[in-house]
Amino acid sequence: MANTTSATTAEHTEYRIEHDTMGEVRVPANALYRAQTQRAVENFPISGRTLEPQHIVALAQIKKAAARANAELGVLDEERARAIAEAADQVATGAYDEHFPIDVFQTGSGTSSNMNTNEVLATLANRALEGTGTEVHPNDHVNASQSSNDVFPTSVHVAVTGALVNELVPAMTQLAESLERKAAEFKDVVKSGRTHLMDATPVTLGQEFGGYAAQVRYGIERVHSALPRVAEVPLGGTAVGTGINTPAGFSARVIELLAEETGLPITEARNHFEAQANRDGLVEASGQLRTVAYSYMKINNDLRWMGSGPNTGLGEILIPDLQPGSSIMPGKVNPVICESTIQVCAQVIGNDTTVSLSSTNGAFELNVGIPVMASALLESIRLLANSSRVMAEKMIDGIEANTERCRFLAEASPSIVTPLNKAIGYEAAAKIAKHAVANKMTVREATIALGYVEDGSLTEQQLDEALDVTTMTGPNA
Amino acid sequence: MANTTSATTAEHTEYRIEHDTMGEVRVPANALYRAQTQRAVENFPISGRTLEPQHIVALAQIKKAAARANAELGVLDEERARAIAEAADQVATGAYDEHFPIDVFQTGSGTSSNMNTNEVLATLANRALEGTGTEVHPNDHVNASQSSNDVFPTSVHVAVTGALVNELVPAMTQLAESLERKAAEFKDVVKSGRTHLMDATPVTLGQEFGGYAAQVRYGIERVHSALPRVAEVPLGGTAVGTGINTPAGFSARVIELLAEETGLPITEARNHFEAQANRDGLVEASGQLRTVAYSYMKINNDLRWMGSGPNTGLGEILIPDLQPGSSIMPGKVNPVICESTIQVCAQVIGNDTTVSLSSTNGAFELNVGIPVMASALLESIRLLANSSRVMAEKMIDGIEANTERCRFLAEASPSIVTPLNKAIGYEAAAKIAKHAVANKMTVREATIALGYVEDGSLTEQQLDEALDVTTMTGPNA
Amino acid sequence: MANTTSATTAEHTEYRIEHDTMGEVRVPANALYRAQTQRAVENFPISGRTLEPQHIVALAQIKKAAARANAELGVLDEERARAIAEAADQVATGAYDEHFPIDVFQTGSGTSSNMNTNEVLATLANRALEGTGTEVHPNDHVNASQSSNDVFPTSVHVAVTGALVNELVPAMTQLAESLERKAAEFKDVVKSGRTHLMDATPVTLGQEFGGYAAQVRYGIERVHSALPRVAEVPLGGTAVGTGINTPAGFSARVIELLAEETGLPITEARNHFEAQANRDGLVEASGQLRTVAYSYMKINNDLRWMGSGPNTGLGEILIPDLQPGSSIMPGKVNPVICESTIQVCAQVIGNDTTVSLSSTNGAFELNVGIPVMASALLESIRLLANSSRVMAEKMIDGIEANTERCRFLAEASPSIVTPLNKAIGYEAAAKIAKHAVANKMTVREATIALGYVEDGSLTEQQLDEALDVTTMTGPNA
Amino acid sequence: MANTTSATTAEHTEYRIEHDTMGEVRVPANALYRAQTQRAVENFPISGRTLEPQHIVALAQIKKAAARANAELGVLDEERARAIAEAADQVATGAYDEHFPIDVFQTGSGTSSNMNTNEVLATLANRALEGTGTEVHPNDHVNASQSSNDVFPTSVHVAVTGALVNELVPAMTQLAESLERKAAEFKDVVKSGRTHLMDATPVTLGQEFGGYAAQVRYGIERVHSALPRVAEVPLGGTAVGTGINTPAGFSARVIELLAEETGLPITEARNHFEAQANRDGLVEASGQLRTVAYSYMKINNDLRWMGSGPNTGLGEILIPDLQPGSSIMPGKVNPVICESTIQVCAQVIGNDTTVSLSSTNGAFELNVGIPVMASALLESIRLLANSSRVMAEKMIDGIEANTERCRFLAEASPSIVTPLNKAIGYEAAAKIAKHAVANKMTVREATIALGYVEDGSLTEQQLDEALDVTTMTGPNA
Repeated sequence: MANTTSATTAEHTEYRIEHDTMGEVRVPANALYRAQTQRAVENFPISGRTLEPQHIVALAQIKKAAARANAELGVLDEERARAIAEAADQVATGAYDEHFPIDVFQTGSGTSSNMNTNEVLATLANRALEGTGTEVHPNDHVNASQSSNDVFPTSVHVAVTGALVNELVPAMTQLAESLERKAAEFKDVVKSGRTHLMDATPVTLGQEFGGYAAQVRYGIERVHSALPRVAEVPLGGTAVGTGINTPAGFSARVIELLAEETGLPITEARNHFEAQANRDGLVEASGQLRTVAYSYMKINNDLRWMGSGPNTGLGEILIPDLQPGSSIMPGKVNPVICESTIQVCAQVIGNDTTVSLSSTNGAFELNVGIPVMASALLESIRLLANSSRVMAEKMIDGIEANTERCRFLAEASPSIVTPLNKAIGYEAAAKIAKHAVANKMTVREATIALGYVEDGSLTEQQLDEALDVTTMTGPNA
Repeated sequence: MANTTSATTAEHTEYRIEHDTMGEVRVPANALYRAQTQRAVENFPISGRTLEPQHIVALAQIKKAAARANAELGVLDEERARAIAEAADQVATGAYDEHFPIDVFQTGSGTSSNMNTNEVLATLANRALEGTGTEVHPNDHVNASQSSNDVFPTSVHVAVTGALVNELVPAMTQLAESLERKAAEFKDVVKSGRTHLMDATPVTLGQEFGGYAAQVRYGIERVHSALPRVAEVPLGGTAVGTGINTPAGFSARVIELLAEETGLPITEARNHFEAQANRDGLVEASGQLRTVAYSYMKINNDLRWMGSGPNTGLGEILIPDLQPGSSIMPGKVNPVICESTIQVCAQVIGNDTTVSLSSTNGAFELNVGIPVMASALLESIRLLANSSRVMAEKMIDGIEANTERCRFLAEASPSIVTPLNKAIGYEAAAKIAKHAVANKMTVREATIALGYVEDGSLTEQQLDEALDVTTMTGPNA
Repeated sequence: MANTTSATTAEHTEYRIEHDTMGEVRVPANALYRAQTQRAVENFPISGRTLEPQHIVALAQIKKAAARANAELGVLDEERARAIAEAADQVATGAYDEHFPIDVFQTGSGTSSNMNTNEVLATLANRALEGTGTEVHPNDHVNASQSSNDVFPTSVHVAVTGALVNELVPAMTQLAESLERKAAEFKDVVKSGRTHLMDATPVTLGQEFGGYAAQVRYGIERVHSALPRVAEVPLGGTAVGTGINTPAGFSARVIELLAEETGLPITEARNHFEAQANRDGLVEASGQLRTVAYSYMKINNDLRWMGSGPNTGLGEILIPDLQPGSSIMPGKVNPVICESTIQVCAQVIGNDTTVSLSSTNGAFELNVGIPVMASALLESIRLLANSSRVMAEKMIDGIEANTERCRFLAEASPSIVTPLNKAIGYEAAAKIAKHAVANKMTVREATIALGYVEDGSLTEQQLDEALDVTTMTGPNA
Repeated sequence: MANTTSATTAEHTEYRIEHDTMGEVRVPANALYRAQTQRAVENFPISGRTLEPQHIVALAQIKKAAARANAELGVLDEERARAIAEAADQVATGAYDEHFPIDVFQTGSGTSSNMNTNEVLATLANRALEGTGTEVHPNDHVNASQSSNDVFPTSVHVAVTGALVNELVPAMTQLAESLERKAAEFKDVVKSGRTHLMDATPVTLGQEFGGYAAQVRYGIERVHSALPRVAEVPLGGTAVGTGINTPAGFSARVIELLAEETGLPITEARNHFEAQANRDGLVEASGQLRTVAYSYMKINNDLRWMGSGPNTGLGEILIPDLQPGSSIMPGKVNPVICESTIQVCAQVIGNDTTVSLSSTNGAFELNVGIPVMASALLESIRLLANSSRVMAEKMIDGIEANTERCRFLAEASPSIVTPLNKAIGYEAAAKIAKHAVANKMTVREATIALGYVEDGSLTEQQLDEALDVTTMTGPNA
């Protein structure tokens, strides 16, 4: 659970001694990780929250691509490169996630998690190479031609790109399709439009659902529009963007291999100094998710108002009953998916603040707020994807129209006087509308009562045509 | 208008030459300010927005207090001190606001505006001293024992404290009183409660308005709770908090005089290093305004939903008609004060982001985001104060209840079944509520139809007592 | 881990059938919860994040207090009341947290979690009463005189109040004390002040640390100032604030018992309609945490800049080495606690957006964004508390001053010319400062070179006294 | 000035009586506007801030296009259409801005400003038609085939698109070019890289400036990526998106004419219901500006740290002196353009909160937070454009490198040990770096002192080659 600081590796844990450049450290005997990971575990007892799983996958994929590029370019021998790549494949399955125990709130470069990856892969590779006499060192081999400063941000961009492309966009598409089906289903359900929450001219319920679907489709466009910059990665820049300690051609080649490995449209940073120092691509992507979250808020607010009632609200649609809604008011049922989703939106928008504000946590060659940016952004994607699916499956697919009530309200709106503007002018039409409301008449009755038929402004037939709410849901024929 | 960069001091402006430590500058001949102000005008052609008027007043009040303290402590002769104080009195009338032309987006310490004040006061003082042979220097005399780094933030805290105490709290009080009058007026108007937007047990409209009034009263408490820290000022710390170049006792004395001059509960910073380096008191105050803004959003959203209709919405209250609501839909009237207020809230909440984020613009002995913090915070106070008054006068005071409709909806809510829990249990009551909704019956009818009277669970009289919506608006008698 | 949607109650789970007002549900055979909890588990596969542990404790404490008040006021028999209270005591130990599996992103009132509590307590109470023939019903007994709409928000306020009082304030106090010890230790370490990042007049390192300590102490004041409103709870208002279905006096009594049970300064809402409909007290508290977070950002930014280097930065202090800082640059050590903390701040500030924005998720008698507000706010408190302790223990306590370098830089600052203002005026002093910088002289040398001793403006002794950086760290003697 | 509520139309104003559908109103005799504008002036005494000038231009352009389309489609006679179009041309010059006095914080649809435009144009058109017997009515003619609900949001999108394309992008381009010139100028200035603020491997100052330029170029890309959705407009949807009261083909034609008139890539909304109800395109654009603002913060923070000193900071560059920096510390000069810009960024980010939060102010067929969205977004564009130019002209263009100091620091960084990894491994290299720092030796000296030359790990020549800071600023040759 996210809530408990890891803590209880318990009393009976067995330990072994590991060392690094700062000295010796006690590490749990079974841990695949080593000294630097252990130091970080001890230094950061903050949240109990660790890297998102797909982030660990991305780290492993990068290490594999780097091992292969290093072998090709003569930095690593084939044997070590293969052992590292195979270890990375194992980690990428998720089977070793428990060996990535470091808190999100760690060093801002993610160096601890990069070293965690290096250590776990070195241990796995050495196990595979046992007896061969070859040893794999976390820094000298697994991390060869790399630095945390290019690897870790790259891992975030890869994980985010993957989550956007493979999780969020399909889920949003499912939602858009669900809304589009309803738009078709409700295309003839005429209802009152509402502007300023006040009675307006009619629309169809299908037009409204079509609008929601379009809003979701625009959200997908927004996600796509951020991809070119999210999918650009700093890999190859090493410590400060210069590519120090890489062989010529490394950056291009390792990114080519990474794109191949992940199946994602990963590209090399056009400027490695910009790419190393800033995480603006993540800020931009987060901004797009924030826009999507606000879109979802609007849709869900509309839906729950349309479903409000059963007797004292608008009552235009029926939202599927999912669970009892009150511990005290019997029989009450609430629009719980709307509420869940709007809370997701609040979290996504809060996460966007976290991600964007973390921009200020950069200076010169490095941003040092990357782990929390990764955590917040990947969480947002996950939440929006899950919510999109839940909205579609548990709510939208099951919404029914209260067609009669919709029609009744459409005809009750005094704004249906609007088509009379052309015949008698805005001011006279206003007089009719006011008269109708004040005297609880229909607009038709008020028009006649005020003498507009009698005086020949229009005939009864013209009046009836003008007041047909169905024809008001489009431009003049 | 805020939009135009000052620009057109036009072709025919006459200039004079002024100098400062960096050399000579051309200054408009009529300007009371001098070289440093002019440099700043030229350096910052950004927004066309200048200091808020009460901010200039606060700067003048500080200069006056400093002149008097300097005289008492032997730093300034009486003649110069008096001349500066009198010049400050003139500036504090607002008569010379046009001589404060520097953009808000200037040096982050407000040094330019402090020097602007020093220059204008020196000019005015010298005019008064003309012929006496005594001269007043902007730095050596007007600014004696001071630094921009203590004066400017002090001026912000003084202006903000004044605006909170003298403008915002009275306006919020007016609003609370208006709401309280309506709470009394509507105390017997029973209406349906709504939770999750769904029909709930009854409340009175007076209870709701009483809740809004309480919310505003809490807002006033919130503003007050921030005052102790907002009213603490760094004056006397000079350049870096140490009070370098001040006579012993200056800080305490000048603040005493300032409190006297302003009539505000201004106190000396308990720690001058904290006070010099941070503007956390402003961030806190802004946070309270942000909370008030969210309160206002809730109140105005409720009101406009209650007033929605006239025919397709809830229609529980009538909001005063203020202006035609549509250029196309004749006779439409909208809840425009609600909308104006909610937009104010959005601005206040945005300003809060600006103010709080500016915290990151501090390092070591100084925050350098003070002018924008001042501008945003003073604007927020002004907007909330004006909106509070407009809400009270143009809307709340004139709201009328649609008593009949309120009662009708209260009785239509299936949640009025709730009192039956005690007699027949939550599960049986749920059965009744669902039966009523499904069969468009009243709860009373459904109770009887399902046999609960017949089977002796309760008598008809007990049923009638239980279903009296009036008694449901409080605990059991 | 927060990342996985609960999922794996695995293939071999045994189930039992439970029912509620909506029908039958399959529930894991071992679960203490029942139908409504299970429905919620299935309805909200969103985040995998559940209620924070202290939130569950608070729910249990409320149920115990309610059972006791109900017994006193004749709503529950003693036997059931005792059984419920004892069950609540067990849940409050944390032993049954796994029986609270519902996602944070659930119904916005927290009804699902309130019912989860009711169901678990009913099950435990029934176990205890087995064979007595008495049965405890989740709604009719455990929830008697209550509604989710008063219980759930009350639980949040109780949990937040407890976490602020018992966790955050002590941790912040530890941090303040650590800083105060360093302020004393460094009281004679003179260093250059910096304003606008530029060389300013001297301060002591102790003055700076004293400023940080004061900032933390103000943070504690801010937390305290929010408590009166955070500790006010809506309990007793039941469904909509009216207290429907409670016996007279219930609200006051149950809150008295709750205060006793929790040892916290819990008070009854002064206006139950405000209290039911809004969570402004949480927004306010969150705003105070946000201000604290910005304070921590400033402190940690200062510290890491002071510790920057070792050779190309400011190098004024030594921050304890905790772990190797680079996977590529050997021997590098970074200010990792600063970075961890600043990331915590970004999360807290993001959570504040989530909490405050959730205000917009209320209408009429209920806010329906409560679970996410609770989750975000309790997380923020936990993160800040943990970070405060880690900062103190792993960093501040071990910071050492580089006294020599500090003194060297203090004397190198051209701003030490400032005391000469009084003797020779601001403009002449500016000339000296510029001359010193331009010619790479000391201020003393420049003063002499420009003839101010020769011309009798001041003697060499006066010059030496004026330029003593030690005396510049306070007002004139 | 933005600060004063319009107020003083003074004592001696002459009035005339106007009427609208709600009755009579006193209007200043000289005003081109009429009753509805006057009502709005009186209803909204909130901020004193009116529409941004280019917003008024956009409204006029729309009215002209509508008049022409109406004439083509037979809704208006040629005479009236021409008179309206000519009036619109006059308004678009800015000559009548003072006749647009309505506060930003008005009705959320902007109906008041749309009617203001209708009234002013009707008055001007009628003046031109005087004596012809033809009269132009604000609603029936100027507003023909339109509604505030499509016109006003369209005007915002047009004004924003124009400001982005014509103001912001050129200003950002100027800034990028200025940075690129400096990148070229500084391409051989080797300096220490810094990660985590700690000494890292070398970069060139040119690489850093190239990174800043790239960051600005990405910002331009971000602005462009939002354009397709910002430039889509709801015009033709009239009241609720259905296009009620428009002739067939109106929407397509009026937008075609509008695109022609403005020279902007304006397109018709792909879904008029989405377009009418939501302003997500503005939220998205604001999110991109927010990202740009964070980029600018990073650049300016780096610059002012590089320029920090002159004697106690980093001192790597010289930022042009623009004005005296302190009222107390003589000779001090500060990086004021950096500070101005960072404050602009804080405002832009705050405005983004305002814009995005205003999404929650929409329901069903209309968002009613449009005027404040427009005001905030147009201000942000203006501020960023002005700041971009000021940054380039007053700062970047004049920055000079302190080449010697840069080189000195580069060589002082212990991280220049990094190239030795390949020869002796990461752990041995770490030993050297630590030895160098601890003993205040150069890396070269430490390598020899620890025996790595003696033991044959590398020759002195290899050592010298490895430690050449120039070659460290790129990948291995």
